[in-house]
Amino acid sequence: MKSRIKLVENMQFVATADSGHAVLMDAPQSVGGNNSGAKPSELLLMAFGGCSGMDIISILRKKKQEVASFEVNVQGDTPEKHPRYFTNIHIEYVVTGRNISEDAVKKAIALSLNTYCMVGLTIGKAAKITHSYRIVDEGGKEGRS
Amino acid sequence: MKSRIKLVENMQFVATADSGHAVLMDAPQSVGGNNSGAKPSELLLMAFGGCSGMDIISILRKKKQEVASFEVNVQGDTPEKHPRYFTNIHIEYVVTGRNISEDAVKKAIALSLNTYCMVGLTIGKAAKITHSYRIVDEGGKEGRS
Repeated sequence: MKSRIKLVENMQFVATADSGHAVLMDAPQSVGGNNSGAKPSELLLMAFGGCSGMDIISILRKKKQEVASFEVNVQGDTPEKHPRYFTNIHIEYVVTGRNISEDAVKKAIALSLNTYCMVGLTIGKAAKITHSYRIVDEGGKEGRS
Repeated sequence: MKSRIKLVENMQFVATADSGHAVLMDAPQSVGGNNSGAKPSELLLMAFGGCSGMDIISILRKKKQEVASFEVNVQGDTPEKHPRYFTNIHIEYVVTGRNISEDAVKKAIALSLNTYCMVGLTIGKAAKITHSYRIVDEGGKEGRS
């Protein structure tokens, strides 16, 4: 798997993947960029949320769960001083639908984080990954863990 | 640092960072997606290239190097079987300009990979990261390591 990351100007880069899809990155103004795109470290958290989110929605669909909407929130903590890396990452899954099985959600999360999600398994060697979930019943009932 | 990743439809997700910037992700058709955006695992490689690329262009500018163009190529290897994660990642830097100091390039790469690049330092706990560089003189001379 390959990506090519090309400087456009100042601190703006365009990354193009094998698949042909391109993503714009930039640094914030505080470190000399123009804030025209996501920061690379933000992209890492996005990649984790997307990776695990795709696993979980696939598994829930296979288990015939009626998911009306689904979102993933990822928060990463880094030390103040260099060399910095993500030491703690929390991922929260919010599943909204009718009669969603809590057991199906728990099993899907475990499968993603322990077996399928390549991004999570890669960054999980550096960061302590914790997770939580919320199940929102379309009737209004909410479960939480 | 936070990101919110929301399911749009099928396997398409939009990730939105604290900074307000959004990135589209999708799965390829082979695994049920519509290939409308980068794969999360591609995003991880993009993030690494962008992160290290920003470090290096900043350092080369501080060292008064006349960089005409700059690109970073990142390649990641993953095992065939689950649980999969990136085991080897190679990053290549291509610096084009006039009278670029090889020493400046080497020092910039070392500073980025060992001290500054948060994405690299995070994924470097899982993957073996190797690097190379090419210096292309605008007059046509090319150096390689």
